[in-house]
Amino acid sequence: MRKKLTLDDFLEGFSKRNLSVLSRAITLVESHHPEDEELAQELIKTLLPQTGKSRRIGISGTPGVGKSSFIEVYGKLLTSKNKKVAILAVDPTSQVSGGSILGDKTRMNELAVDPLAFIRPSPSGESLGGVARKTREAILLCEAFGFDYVLVETVGVGQSETTVARMVDIFIMLLQPGSGDDLQGIKRGILEVVDMVVVTKDDGDSRSLILKAKHDYMQALQILRHENTIPKVLSCSSLTKTGFDEFQNELEDYFKNKISLIQKKREDQNLHWMWEIVKESLLTEFYQKVPRDMINKTESLILKGSISPSDGAKKLMSFLKSHLPE
Amino acid sequence: MRKKLTLDDFLEGFSKRNLSVLSRAITLVESHHPEDEELAQELIKTLLPQTGKSRRIGISGTPGVGKSSFIEVYGKLLTSKNKKVAILAVDPTSQVSGGSILGDKTRMNELAVDPLAFIRPSPSGESLGGVARKTREAILLCEAFGFDYVLVETVGVGQSETTVARMVDIFIMLLQPGSGDDLQGIKRGILEVVDMVVVTKDDGDSRSLILKAKHDYMQALQILRHENTIPKVLSCSSLTKTGFDEFQNELEDYFKNKISLIQKKREDQNLHWMWEIVKESLLTEFYQKVPRDMINKTESLILKGSISPSDGAKKLMSFLKSHLPE
Repeated sequence: MRKKLTLDDFLEGFSKRNLSVLSRAITLVESHHPEDEELAQELIKTLLPQTGKSRRIGISGTPGVGKSSFIEVYGKLLTSKNKKVAILAVDPTSQVSGGSILGDKTRMNELAVDPLAFIRPSPSGESLGGVARKTREAILLCEAFGFDYVLVETVGVGQSETTVARMVDIFIMLLQPGSGDDLQGIKRGILEVVDMVVVTKDDGDSRSLILKAKHDYMQALQILRHENTIPKVLSCSSLTKTGFDEFQNELEDYFKNKISLIQKKREDQNLHWMWEIVKESLLTEFYQKVPRDMINKTESLILKGSISPSDGAKKLMSFLKSHLPE
Repeated sequence: MRKKLTLDDFLEGFSKRNLSVLSRAITLVESHHPEDEELAQELIKTLLPQTGKSRRIGISGTPGVGKSSFIEVYGKLLTSKNKKVAILAVDPTSQVSGGSILGDKTRMNELAVDPLAFIRPSPSGESLGGVARKTREAILLCEAFGFDYVLVETVGVGQSETTVARMVDIFIMLLQPGSGDDLQGIKRGILEVVDMVVVTKDDGDSRSLILKAKHDYMQALQILRHENTIPKVLSCSSLTKTGFDEFQNELEDYFKNKISLIQKKREDQNLHWMWEIVKESLLTEFYQKVPRDMINKTESLILKGSISPSDGAKKLMSFLKSHLPE
């Protein structure tokens, strides 16, 4: 077993840009050990003034859409310009599958060995809330470490897209027409949070299919979004590496022209994040003090119609309060 | 000042179908007086076995769409078939405006004097959460009283539509094309919770506009909704009273063919409601124990970037816990 690092060890490792120390800092943040949690908070607190300088980019898409290939090509484009890129994953299914995204670094052959890139799989064994919290903190660590770009990859599971959209400056959805990613197949609510759509695999014989899909997505976005700026719909091919320059130009425009929007977004995200943690902590307190049996029984009485929901809530809260002082 | 009614007085009034007693029961439910709250819970608990038999219908639409006229015509259609109809409002703006919907019963001239109908404005001076809670309880009272239909009217303010959709069996949106209700003007998320759309004012010269709008709404619903049943889009005119028979037929179909869906919906709504109240109560506890000053200060430190959101949450929770026993 390796020697535990102290706060000073971590800070020294960060100042020396030691990637294995960054890795261990993220592991620290992911730990459930109270001692680790305390040190993790201490570390983040100390590093906080050095955070906030990265471009935070969320990238989403269903399995098979080509997320890894896209990130491989885009990541290489960034490192070729001497930009430092961190890639994090948010995958609440990783507790089941052992990590369906980024778990296998070999899918990003070149990035995986690129000294300017850092790839970190999703924390496993966590609920989405847990993954989200740890990923937010990992973003801060990567920023303090000096990465210019932090890419947060996610799969289209449950609320994961909305969760990731709430921790990044721009949220990009990859779509592949003709594979369940037609308009009918896109999950509710997703088109409402995307800032940009990229149609993947724009190569080969499917040109007309791609054009039709781009048109459909654009129309859907126009229906759904009333802002002044309707999200752009681009296309690219990771195979022929076309479309990436346009993509990067659009991103540059976004980060240059939307400074106050991004600033506002981050402030909102931070307050939202704080209240999420407060609410989560309150519920944790509730579950610690109110026995599961009592909750189950109350729920089944409500389902049977024997008691009203507000009566049920009242019973549970009375129990909780009887265990608290006035 | 009138004599306070006892539980027995209320029960007797309900069994005699005394509308003024129903009115006072709803006032009781709306009261913030601890004594009234207790009696209200007692009353609802006693009446609970008699609830659940009404058809709960949510009707939404922006001001000017013709909600009152629609409800007037539809309500009269129901009472003409000897159905008893209660009409409740959910309007979180009523604290400001003094009640922008249903406040003025004269907009429903005929229903207001119909012995089979009961009209109740939105509780005023309440947050949406407060209005929602009281309206849910008012629905139960109306059901126990023996109403066949409970119509819950709401305006398109904030989350009010989603809130109402969560307390009814079917949620209907009224739309008026050419008045900001074009597709671009419809609030995000609303089309995702509607079960039926009715285009109003289908009279006069606007026939082609109406047809176009119906087509657009249908297309948008097809894009957004992947269920087997895509919400129906109908049209009607409260002026010429056309379209209401078709509307009523569609409703009959819905209530006859979707029995298990409605049952499931109500069960989900009840559990959701219980947890909403629990979470709300936990936050209320939080606000009672953590001073507003401390919250404000923490939020501004987060906005300044001096502390992280999780650090802020932790500070507030520590304060709370230091006021609780282990």
